[in-house]
Amino acid sequence: MQRRAKGSVIWFTGLSGSGKSTLAGLMSEELERRGVHAERLDGDEIRKNLSPELGFSPADRDENIRRIGFVAALVERCGACAVVAAISPYRTARDAVRRSVQRFVEIHVDCPIDVLKARDPKGLYKRALAGELTGFTGLDAPYEPPLSPELHVRTDLETPAQTVARILSRLEELGAIPRP
Amino acid sequence: MQRRAKGSVIWFTGLSGSGKSTLAGLMSEELERRGVHAERLDGDEIRKNLSPELGFSPADRDENIRRIGFVAALVERCGACAVVAAISPYRTARDAVRRSVQRFVEIHVDCPIDVLKARDPKGLYKRALAGELTGFTGLDAPYEPPLSPELHVRTDLETPAQTVARILSRLEELGAIPRP
Repeated sequence: MQRRAKGSVIWFTGLSGSGKSTLAGLMSEELERRGVHAERLDGDEIRKNLSPELGFSPADRDENIRRIGFVAALVERCGACAVVAAISPYRTARDAVRRSVQRFVEIHVDCPIDVLKARDPKGLYKRALAGELTGFTGLDAPYEPPLSPELHVRTDLETPAQTVARILSRLEELGAIPRP
Repeated sequence: MQRRAKGSVIWFTGLSGSGKSTLAGLMSEELERRGVHAERLDGDEIRKNLSPELGFSPADRDENIRRIGFVAALVERCGACAVVAAISPYRTARDAVRRSVQRFVEIHVDCPIDVLKARDPKGLYKRALAGELTGFTGLDAPYEPPLSPELHVRTDLETPAQTVARILSRLEELGAIPRP
């Protein structure tokens, strides 16, 4: 007989290269250490597995976010924590997911775009600035920041470890995870 | 702190109208009664939510099953029981899901096609026989029955309650659910 754990959805949103996946990975490890099963739902990974036909138009991006939301809700109902890392540039799509789950913890992973252009580990900004990629969020496609996220983090001003510590204490405040 | 429950995937396969969804619904209720969280993954429902662009060609059917399998594996990892009801006509697609999860309980929901044609609650067989639907499993599209399913049930010979009782005792044998 299992005791039903409280599920939750931790949603990292922000520009490409802002640090969403890094934070999602660290968070998942930390959650597991605390006995909370975490399922990472990475935007690109879900796209590959569930939405290979979708592109990057606003409608296709929204549809991809809707599907991630569908899966995240399922993970939450199972009493686990869905840890989502997805650019998810549009506010309405994120808010629709928020309404469809019980406990939505939206974390805006923020970093000035000039820092991102300088970091650019995958060379995506360079390609987008050279015109090889179009519809790139933050350059020629919009990013709508959350208006009242559960947490706003600046990855250019704090280390990943510092950010994770802040996220954990916010999750504890929200009752999403047990205090250690 | 949650105790991690053992997850599993219960997969009902069989022709349209054979009773998969009915059994999946009854099974989910029974599992919840035993304290095992069940997530129903209905072929048509998942198709609507995750695969609206897919049709009924063999490749599209297989892709839909692959996506259901992806979600079922996730539910299993969360320690819950994925209860899948999907025609899933092709053996290779079902076997690929089997390989991708820890505990796969395949239940062949069997019923002679003449009985299904007579039942036909949704009028689908009638439409298919009239040529209004093509690629209909069991008529002009193949159904490949499982070669060694964990359970084979005949819905024309036993009541749903009898079938559910047999499934539960098989699940207990397999260690997939606790004995009451």
